[in-house]
Amino acid sequence: MWPSHYALEDRREGQLARRESVQSGPGSQALIVDLIRSAGTISRTELTEATGLTQPSISNIVRRLIEDGLVRETGRAAPRGGKPRTLLEINASAKYGVGIQLGFESITLVATDVRGGVVGRQLVDGAGSATPEQVTDRLVTLYRGFVAGVGLAAPSIAGVAVVAPGPIAQLGGVLLGPPTLVRWDDFPLQQALQESLDVPVVVDNDAAAAAVGEFWSRQVSRTESFACVYMGTGIGAGMVLGGALYRGSSSNAGELGHISIEVDGVPCHCGNRGCLERYAAPAAVMAAAEASRDRLDGLGLGFAPETLSRDFDQLARAAVSGHEAALDLIRFSADRVAAASVTLANLLDLDRLVLAGPGMAVAGSLYARAIRERLEQRFFARRAHPIVVELSANPRDAAAIGAASLVLQGTIAPGHGPALTR
Amino acid sequence: MWPSHYALEDRREGQLARRESVQSGPGSQALIVDLIRSAGTISRTELTEATGLTQPSISNIVRRLIEDGLVRETGRAAPRGGKPRTLLEINASAKYGVGIQLGFESITLVATDVRGGVVGRQLVDGAGSATPEQVTDRLVTLYRGFVAGVGLAAPSIAGVAVVAPGPIAQLGGVLLGPPTLVRWDDFPLQQALQESLDVPVVVDNDAAAAAVGEFWSRQVSRTESFACVYMGTGIGAGMVLGGALYRGSSSNAGELGHISIEVDGVPCHCGNRGCLERYAAPAAVMAAAEASRDRLDGLGLGFAPETLSRDFDQLARAAVSGHEAALDLIRFSADRVAAASVTLANLLDLDRLVLAGPGMAVAGSLYARAIRERLEQRFFARRAHPIVVELSANPRDAAAIGAASLVLQGTIAPGHGPALTR
Repeated sequence: MWPSHYALEDRREGQLARRESVQSGPGSQALIVDLIRSAGTISRTELTEATGLTQPSISNIVRRLIEDGLVRETGRAAPRGGKPRTLLEINASAKYGVGIQLGFESITLVATDVRGGVVGRQLVDGAGSATPEQVTDRLVTLYRGFVAGVGLAAPSIAGVAVVAPGPIAQLGGVLLGPPTLVRWDDFPLQQALQESLDVPVVVDNDAAAAAVGEFWSRQVSRTESFACVYMGTGIGAGMVLGGALYRGSSSNAGELGHISIEVDGVPCHCGNRGCLERYAAPAAVMAAAEASRDRLDGLGLGFAPETLSRDFDQLARAAVSGHEAALDLIRFSADRVAAASVTLANLLDLDRLVLAGPGMAVAGSLYARAIRERLEQRFFARRAHPIVVELSANPRDAAAIGAASLVLQGTIAPGHGPALTR
Repeated sequence: MWPSHYALEDRREGQLARRESVQSGPGSQALIVDLIRSAGTISRTELTEATGLTQPSISNIVRRLIEDGLVRETGRAAPRGGKPRTLLEINASAKYGVGIQLGFESITLVATDVRGGVVGRQLVDGAGSATPEQVTDRLVTLYRGFVAGVGLAAPSIAGVAVVAPGPIAQLGGVLLGPPTLVRWDDFPLQQALQESLDVPVVVDNDAAAAAVGEFWSRQVSRTESFACVYMGTGIGAGMVLGGALYRGSSSNAGELGHISIEVDGVPCHCGNRGCLERYAAPAAVMAAAEASRDRLDGLGLGFAPETLSRDFDQLARAAVSGHEAALDLIRFSADRVAAASVTLANLLDLDRLVLAGPGMAVAGSLYARAIRERLEQRFFARRAHPIVVELSANPRDAAAIGAASLVLQGTIAPGHGPALTR
């Protein structure tokens, strides 16, 4: 289906108009914070112009933000005809968010300030085969040690977000293959942590958190159609559409790993056939590697569930340095991720795609290249507009950093998730 | 990736809260109209409760709507403790929208009232191989004759929307195979029509228009994740997410026909491989039918580009009445559309999928059944929530009716597209 060029122009104007119409609730506070943050410094007059809100509304919101310590006044702008205007800026150290990426093999804690800067990071052993109760106790201890070590004062901590691929408290009962957190079925992690911690606790999906983090830290425009492809144990996508994290009906949106790339392909535990994960996720790549292990001698691969991430990183490292057999395996995976990325781009008419997750940490550039090449040839709207493919600056910690961003955004506009509110 | 059940609960509350936070601009007018329309009759007090807007805001908006004739007062509600409240209802005949579905083989004109009721319909020969200028002249004549015939007074006509699959004014230059409007490359249809008509003219994509029409006429909740799969010559999807038509970066979102269902499948004119359209669209089905034409004797199939729609309908009719060879062909197509629908549902975590378009007019129930069955077995979030699959009440005219809805919505909240504004 081809759109009309002319209708499109109308719409573009409509989009701009829409962008400036602001919610009357906490959403406008979030937008104000977002505008100040992306501008660096900005005056109240400029905020009025940028939002279409009335001057009294802007004054009220700004006063509240200054009282809360999130925004501060900083000098005056050179007069532009009229009288000089006081400039506003974000008070980066007003609040901190803590993000915890919970995995089988590792747990990462990060703290970020309001500008998204990482002020602390800690990497420890994963949940492994410990019980959920044991892991919860460990997380509480870890959290306390971490915030003390980074030196965050309790009142400045906005909250903590724990992110995981699941199947923590999964909705169904279908289990992802090991190594993963199979014992966490229906365990109320949020509740258990909240009982021990006196800051707000949220639990979220890693791909969604990474998308929010990348959207936030890259200062992506709210009008962009944005997605983050996240490869950890599985493959997921987070989507920020019209400035809002898109979650779908039950927060199950973005299941990129479970879209079929082969209509009659291999069966998947999810019920579908030909799922991307079955061809491209680390477990699939290592299964293929094991089948041709004679070509991979000397790479020190363990071929065991508990060494999956390490093995995949090792294979990726060999691929990046030109090892032919390793390159074949990674390229096969990258081509499949690229095929699914074209599907995602064609359905959502994306402007930007960012790659993140531990699976992208070593050979992310190979994946980015494969996706770029395929989009150049196959993206439906390629003649209408470019699509930018970028690699996360920190693929391994992207979900933890995104989690911390989620918490901060929740604080800035309570109950909404500011820049990301519909 | 599995989401957290617990995070989900928080989010669900957030969603409800969000639903009630209303834009301060024309968006609130649109929401008010939407609430009145879906309630049948409603009081100002109930509108205040439902939106969270202040009483003075509600009074202002309602006064404006009454002045514009879109809403009227109608009797009083039985007192509920307090004093009786005046009820409001939509004045269905205040405005009419005209939708024109422009096709190679046929042109359909419809007029709808504010409630979405069809008040007039006309079917005439399509654009065929006439020049765009000739077709534009014909459309102007057709439009004038149609509104005169239906008896619509000029001031009550909100505007006219022309919808087509393209490649009218396509952005690229890639052509869809015949039979289609190949000569319309870069023709400024909106502008050409606007010069001759004194009502607002818009041009839009058929699948997007159909989605808007189905969303509107079914009174789907704004919190639902909603898509319309539209099969005409090609296959497209319109998506209404968070109450807003999702268009993507360049209005090219929803290219369901050009998602790959076979990673190494047959090449498509769009540049991609294994595109759904190459297996499931009417032209693909008829190509397969021609290859086994000995099994289809007696169905009177023409196997020519200019008889494609008629042939496909004929084959679909035979399939519906149990003709084995015809059934095999339609089932193959339906299974492929179902596979792509699972992809769409998994990426967007859909609540509802509606099938529309001329391609669904005869055998739509076979497509709906195939999609339902596949979703039951393969939809990722199937244990979290149901997904409803419905057939348009009027698949053939769905885009024209949707176009008329688009116009009306544009009138109710100028420059925004009310129920569909982000």
